Amino acid sequence: MQRLSVKEARLPEAIGQQVRLSGWVRTRRDSKGGFSFIEINDGSSLGNIQIIADGDLPNYESEIKHLSAGSSLTVEGEVKQSGGKGQATEIQAASIVMHGTADPESYPLQKKRHSFEKLREWAHLRPRTNTFGAVMRVRNRISRSIHDFFQGEDFLWVHTPIITASDCEGAGEMFRVSTLDPANPPKDDKGNIDYARDFFGRASYLTVSGQLEGEIYATALGKIYTFGPTFRAENSNTSRHLAEFWMVEPEVAFYDLTDNMELAERFLKRIVSDVMADCAEDMQFFQDRIDNTTFAKLEKVTEGKFQRVAYTDAIDILEKSGQEFEFPVAWGHDLQAEHERFLTEQHFESPVILYNYPATIKPFYMKVNDDAEPDRPTVRAMDVLTPGVGEIIGGSQREERLDVLEDRMRQQDLNLDDYWWYRELREFGTVPHSGFGLGLERMVQFVTGMANIRDVIPFPRTPGSAEF
Amino acid sequence: MQRLSVKEARLPEAIGQQVRLSGWVRTRRDSKGGFSFIEINDGSSLGNIQIIADGDLPNYESEIKHLSAGSSLTVEGEVKQSGGKGQATEIQAASIVMHGTADPESYPLQKKRHSFEKLREWAHLRPRTNTFGAVMRVRNRISRSIHDFFQGEDFLWVHTPIITASDCEGAGEMFRVSTLDPANPPKDDKGNIDYARDFFGRASYLTVSGQLEGEIYATALGKIYTFGPTFRAENSNTSRHLAEFWMVEPEVAFYDLTDNMELAERFLKRIVSDVMADCAEDMQFFQDRIDNTTFAKLEKVTEGKFQRVAYTDAIDILEKSGQEFEFPVAWGHDLQAEHERFLTEQHFESPVILYNYPATIKPFYMKVNDDAEPDRPTVRAMDVLTPGVGEIIGGSQREERLDVLEDRMRQQDLNLDDYWWYRELREFGTVPHSGFGLGLERMVQFVTGMANIRDVIPFPRTPGSAEF
Repeated sequence: MQRLSVKEARLPEAIGQQVRLSGWVRTRRDSKGGFSFIEINDGSSLGNIQIIADGDLPNYESEIKHLSAGSSLTVEGEVKQSGGKGQATEIQAASIVMHGTADPESYPLQKKRHSFEKLREWAHLRPRTNTFGAVMRVRNRISRSIHDFFQGEDFLWVHTPIITASDCEGAGEMFRVSTLDPANPPKDDKGNIDYARDFFGRASYLTVSGQLEGEIYATALGKIYTFGPTFRAENSNTSRHLAEFWMVEPEVAFYDLTDNMELAERFLKRIVSDVMADCAEDMQFFQDRIDNTTFAKLEKVTEGKFQRVAYTDAIDILEKSGQEFEFPVAWGHDLQAEHERFLTEQHFESPVILYNYPATIKPFYMKVNDDAEPDRPTVRAMDVLTPGVGEIIGGSQREERLDVLEDRMRQQDLNLDDYWWYRELREFGTVPHSGFGLGLERMVQFVTGMANIRDVIPFPRTPGSAEF
Repeated sequence: MQRLSVKEARLPEAIGQQVRLSGWVRTRRDSKGGFSFIEINDGSSLGNIQIIADGDLPNYESEIKHLSAGSSLTVEGEVKQSGGKGQATEIQAASIVMHGTADPESYPLQKKRHSFEKLREWAHLRPRTNTFGAVMRVRNRISRSIHDFFQGEDFLWVHTPIITASDCEGAGEMFRVSTLDPANPPKDDKGNIDYARDFFGRASYLTVSGQLEGEIYATALGKIYTFGPTFRAENSNTSRHLAEFWMVEPEVAFYDLTDNMELAERFLKRIVSDVMADCAEDMQFFQDRIDNTTFAKLEKVTEGKFQRVAYTDAIDILEKSGQEFEFPVAWGHDLQAEHERFLTEQHFESPVILYNYPATIKPFYMKVNDDAEPDRPTVRAMDVLTPGVGEIIGGSQREERLDVLEDRMRQQDLNLDDYWWYRELREFGTVPHSGFGLGLERMVQFVTGMANIRDVIPFPRTPGSAEF
């Protein structure tokens, strides 16, 4: 007897097979004819499969007639063509074995719909709902697509460290990692905490980005990407921020900014088309139930070429737009969400790659443009903006000239000694190179239309919340 | 003009093409005939490609004749059939553009061989060596194979949390994660540190395993795996321990221990055969230069079936072996490395799956065997042992019966309230399920024969060491 998933048993090809299926009951309906319809789901697809359980099954009266939502069973039987609407197949049960009950009085996931806020409190049960099952299948497909894309282009997946002794990027607040007794930490002779006696012999933190270490591997092995958890200890209680999130960061030797833009565009197109091809049922659910602009938004990614616009030209467009913005538009300032949305949703009606940003608003490691106006220096930064969510990718060509890099570090009051190894990458066989970062959860939000980032990650970590 | 990698340009199919290649110089040799041979590598393969640079190139005297190991360049030219030994192709340079020099006086990676210990201090340069390039390509292939295997079997990759508020497994020392001011933490009215005012509103730590959270997703979506970093704050300075390492943990609903063994065996066979097929050149390097038992050891995995031996039978074999062991063999004690090696290397000469261990030496979540002798209770644990490294996988069927689980928790002095959500997985629609864990770095050590685990991860974190 073949063990099939619900997804497999729903295919017309399964008709006629003797199979075993296991799953959780979604609904039970008893017919007047003395038999029951039981819908089960096993997470392999959004849709359920219907089981016909005849009254002459030995445990029909004792167990089957009491099956309630959330209880678990294994059925053996034949896959038959279904007469029911919206389903190709059903299972005629030869036997049903119960595994566990779910008392309707206490099981939280009853038929009534629960708010996403409420479901966050039940993070151990919410993957049993339609929405979170669909989110997790799409999240998995995106994650798989990320690997497939880069592996297919001969990139190496490099595991950059999670625990780091340096806040190199200065990208934000960091979490401290320690094994010292917090109630009674060792002190040095000046009375300061003696981190030399901490686990790693120094103060250490959770990483905010694998980029700088990624550059080490790109400047040795050519094409690499990181894909792992990153952390921000920022007290941001928004629908777009998490303290712990997954980020993918490709880094490529001998790539200039144009190569980088092409990589980013190919990458996003690939993810979206993989999800649309392989998660059709789940995506239809998001389109119908979560955000009816989803398909239109995703078509903008897969069809046509992303608009490429220099920052200076974007400022010009915004200034001449006649739009009233809450935040003023001025060369030298970062664009606000409202500006980004105007460009991508109204002006270009397309994904947009903005590039060549003012040097003053970007980190030290971005390559300085030689041909910039002297009083308006720019760097080879690029951000990819998409309709609906704004910035989804940020990247740059990196500064490979040691003298220019060190000037920029001094301008930003960085301690050059802290970056000894980063500088040596430029001292020994320096090469032009580029890379970018994409937050996985932002991408899942974009693809599914889910409004709150806490609902696209299994166990969200936010200020005040680390349950489970 | 096509941009090729060194790997691509080394293939006979490339002959006749006009190409552009970029990479780092490994060696330069000047001919008396007024031209030079330059070998470059770009990380795409272990082998280099040879460039023929004629004396009439415009920068021949000024730059090319000074190229030294570690300097970087881009060459354009035609791929030609090579007359040289051990190489199919070479590049006849039409132009060579220098990117960066590497002063032979200061560049650490000169021709002389460096010890692996020394190279650890140069973690930013060691990927430029043959050994670490090969390690990273094999590590990448193993990681890719892990995803391919599980995705091919319709498992979902679930990102379990890195920061956790509970030491649920009690699996070992944990790192504390905090944003409190360590020099002056807030105190409650009893004078204890007030973690309610820490970032997450409670004391929090780095995860030691994603298993318990993985069970949440397996008991909703069926087949899942985690693959991410895990942490142990143990002061172990050995060649097999890291404070930060990557672990893969599949968890499957409706799998019993036998299904679990079959999954583990299929999984290991797949990884090894993928690496042997796709990393032939790198694997030959490990066989020749690192450990000449590598191929024989890996054949044991791919060929034939793993031996399955109950713990009690293994004790019997060890007791009757006539071997003198340093540690005594006795039912109820964990096997030591010497015992595991005897079983897998001498007695069975094959990978071995040991199962049904004494309950007293295993965690609370493993399923208790009903048919065990009353004074010798066992649980459905399984360890996969391989020749050369011993235990490489540990797993079990999980206890799905709430009453038995709670008894085991009380026996192990655990606080049931801490596990409220884990217990609810058994209260609502409980199902038989199983899973296991494989440490990525142990697997890379096994496949490559590299002796020290610090040399199979880009940036090892160990007591006293978190540089880079």
